[in-house]
Amino acid sequence: MSVVIRRAQKSDYREIWEIFSDIVSKGETYAFPTDTGREEAIALWLTAPSKTFVAVLDNKVIGTYYIKPNHPGPGSHICNCGYMVLERTRGKGVASAMCEHSQRQALRMGFKGMQFNLVVSTNSDAIRLWKKLGFDIIGTLPKSFNHRKLGLVDAHVMYKWLEPAGE
Amino acid sequence: MSVVIRRAQKSDYREIWEIFSDIVSKGETYAFPTDTGREEAIALWLTAPSKTFVAVLDNKVIGTYYIKPNHPGPGSHICNCGYMVLERTRGKGVASAMCEHSQRQALRMGFKGMQFNLVVSTNSDAIRLWKKLGFDIIGTLPKSFNHRKLGLVDAHVMYKWLEPAGE
Repeated sequence: MSVVIRRAQKSDYREIWEIFSDIVSKGETYAFPTDTGREEAIALWLTAPSKTFVAVLDNKVIGTYYIKPNHPGPGSHICNCGYMVLERTRGKGVASAMCEHSQRQALRMGFKGMQFNLVVSTNSDAIRLWKKLGFDIIGTLPKSFNHRKLGLVDAHVMYKWLEPAGE
Repeated sequence: MSVVIRRAQKSDYREIWEIFSDIVSKGETYAFPTDTGREEAIALWLTAPSKTFVAVLDNKVIGTYYIKPNHPGPGSHICNCGYMVLERTRGKGVASAMCEHSQRQALRMGFKGMQFNLVVSTNSDAIRLWKKLGFDIIGTLPKSFNHRKLGLVDAHVMYKWLEPAGE
């Protein structure tokens, strides 16, 4: 598979929206309202973040991620990213490729660390992957995510310092 | 001291801005840009949150706090609050009174828990107080806050479930 990761552009919005709405409407992994509409999705995923990327295979958008400061001011050296992969192309390394890309991108943008604020504890594929890519669970927020099928479940805060040691 | 806590109104903005700018410009406790201007401060503290309150003593605003969902959608049952106290009235229980008020307010607004996302590890008065009021440090984010005097310091995620057990 030769996936290309590049900046998102207007012509990608339709495919991004398809991925976003499929994932968000399930209410199992993202703290966005399950009925988020197209315009709001574009605002959240493409306008608010600093940059948004897409993973493209054979001219098809199969994944997307955003990067933005997790907090402003004295917290702005830590970034936050969100990743989404088209359902039928999961388990093929797309999320992994995007996360590695985002870490390089973060350093290039001057960020020193990356934080995921609400990794749903039942999203075991994601947790396994983020751990493999160097993220630590720094804490667990009890019953902080209202899972559409399971009700209130825990969520993790995950964190990775990106700058090489000694710098 | 008989402090009254009530909703903030337009006529409070000047005094809120004085407290906000004094605290935020120091760059020691809040992840807002140290040069945040008045209009942006009002947007952050009064417009974006669900509700903002002031603590008033003898017709003088001596403290303020906001409450808002910490995340949208499936994370929206957990609220986030921020508290600020006028410097010369600190250590007199104003923050404590506001935090207790905010917990009652949170339950009234339908929230089930409260989260502080970035409690600077050097802000020991705040940490002691939040612990006393039932919050747990659920994790520590290394070097996640760029303290104006001390450089990169750790920050804690603090969390309290508000609903009584059994409900």
